[in-house]
Amino acid sequence: MVFSVIGTGAIGGFYGGMLAGAGQDVHFLLNTDYDWVNEHGLQINSAHLGGLHLPKVQAYQKATDMPPSDVILVGLKSIQNEKLLPDLLPPLLKKDSLVILIQNGLGVEKDVADLFPGVSIAGGIARVSASKVSPGVIRHFDNGRLELGSYNLPDLNRLEEVVSTFQTTGLPIVTIPDLQFIRWRKLVWNIPFNGLSVILNTTTDQLVGNPETAQLSKEIMREVIAGANACGIHLSEAFADEMLAYTQRMRPYSPSMKLDFEQGRPLEIRYIYENPVSAAQAAGYSMSRVDTLAQQLTFLERQRNSQAEM
Amino acid sequence: MVFSVIGTGAIGGFYGGMLAGAGQDVHFLLNTDYDWVNEHGLQINSAHLGGLHLPKVQAYQKATDMPPSDVILVGLKSIQNEKLLPDLLPPLLKKDSLVILIQNGLGVEKDVADLFPGVSIAGGIARVSASKVSPGVIRHFDNGRLELGSYNLPDLNRLEEVVSTFQTTGLPIVTIPDLQFIRWRKLVWNIPFNGLSVILNTTTDQLVGNPETAQLSKEIMREVIAGANACGIHLSEAFADEMLAYTQRMRPYSPSMKLDFEQGRPLEIRYIYENPVSAAQAAGYSMSRVDTLAQQLTFLERQRNSQAEM
Repeated sequence: MVFSVIGTGAIGGFYGGMLAGAGQDVHFLLNTDYDWVNEHGLQINSAHLGGLHLPKVQAYQKATDMPPSDVILVGLKSIQNEKLLPDLLPPLLKKDSLVILIQNGLGVEKDVADLFPGVSIAGGIARVSASKVSPGVIRHFDNGRLELGSYNLPDLNRLEEVVSTFQTTGLPIVTIPDLQFIRWRKLVWNIPFNGLSVILNTTTDQLVGNPETAQLSKEIMREVIAGANACGIHLSEAFADEMLAYTQRMRPYSPSMKLDFEQGRPLEIRYIYENPVSAAQAAGYSMSRVDTLAQQLTFLERQRNSQAEM
Repeated sequence: MVFSVIGTGAIGGFYGGMLAGAGQDVHFLLNTDYDWVNEHGLQINSAHLGGLHLPKVQAYQKATDMPPSDVILVGLKSIQNEKLLPDLLPPLLKKDSLVILIQNGLGVEKDVADLFPGVSIAGGIARVSASKVSPGVIRHFDNGRLELGSYNLPDLNRLEEVVSTFQTTGLPIVTIPDLQFIRWRKLVWNIPFNGLSVILNTTTDQLVGNPETAQLSKEIMREVIAGANACGIHLSEAFADEMLAYTQRMRPYSPSMKLDFEQGRPLEIRYIYENPVSAAQAAGYSMSRVDTLAQQLTFLERQRNSQAEM
């Protein structure tokens, strides 16, 4: 099974690296990190998993040099899909390629399916705390579970095959029957903690360690759960308490959007905030708190970008 | 008519200074600015009203040195009432003193009435853009209308007398029959622009000049209007559009809470945010956006204070 990774950041680098470390045939597309990775390979530093150093990986600068692949893992920021995939994806596609979008938010699969009619698409939710700390170096903090769900596959057989191969990594990789369910469930965490860490310039431990923001995070999670319920996805209110307690046990963490904000990268506001707000609104439920965060984040991103231009 | 001013900041300094400039008998209680004002007097700089310089004013360091007064203007930050008025107010009270709280937010009169049973209390809403730029120096930007409403007066006669005297300043000073109406109406502006200017570290022109925050400000204003309506105060939805257009015509402005935040002063979260949220909630309406701002502000104030301690 030939794997390709488009977007070798924290997520693409972690799962692609773990696959390569397990002896799978993995091809990495790189951009600014190409020279470093081509020379030094990939490294995954983890207290839990032990270190993994791959001194030599199959690294590419251009998609047109890569082999047609059975499985294409997309680890780009969701908002880059529209701009980058029209060039990067076609050279990798062959009959029966499976494209797996390991990305955050709601509606990523639909937008990619609209760009590539007839291509098989699955969505992936990475339940992992990891950051790229320098070119080719991924730091893994916690977890590693990957949940995969079909978007437009006729059945789950293809996905189950991929999962079997993926399990050679030792990581818990599973298929989930309802992709929208796992996407909404991840949003319950992503929406409060990504947004508030940017807006309030802080980390998860501060957010859950102070009474007003612990309460606010819980209220936001409840609103997301109510939005999911309006869309026919069953999540119980108790899940908000579980996620709060889980985050209280986590070590201090800067969510991906906080790192994106600090490092001048575009924020995934559309997929993490705007699409869920629209989906809930279309089902008759207004997520006012989530919409407030969306508008605050849009403003902050705009101000950051206009300051960067000066 | 003997006037006293407790809290000679932007608001107390502006209205007290205008009264003294019109020849009224005004006594100013000062704290850190006492030495400067005692020596140099008060100055109001204004493009609209012309400059006003009072080289000598009746300035005091201690309330116990001041005369019992017919009218006591309270220009403290609302959240200081509870701590400061029990010492500062009693020396100024005589039979028939009228205490006018020229302060922002909801519920200030009730809290002061609970501290001073039997004392006559009115509320005042200053529709003015002014800042204290240095000790004894007030910069006036725009407007100056003062709206006064009875909290516990048997009739409006006393208040009308005060207004007649006040009108010697040339400023538009009026009585309004429904105090809660003017308090809620002012909140429609205060809640979005005070809070967002702190949370997003910006000024009014940026908030109304960018589409996402113009929209967010309008949504927040609509929520406050719906909260007022739930409490039996009639404000129409169109008022949100009026206030947005009004703010778009204003010059760039840092609302008082932004200055309080920058200068390490406590924020009026309780009266501007928490009390309105509770009042609307008690009337069956949840102001989720306003509550979100309240919790964000509480967090930011706490972080600012804990950084100041380090």
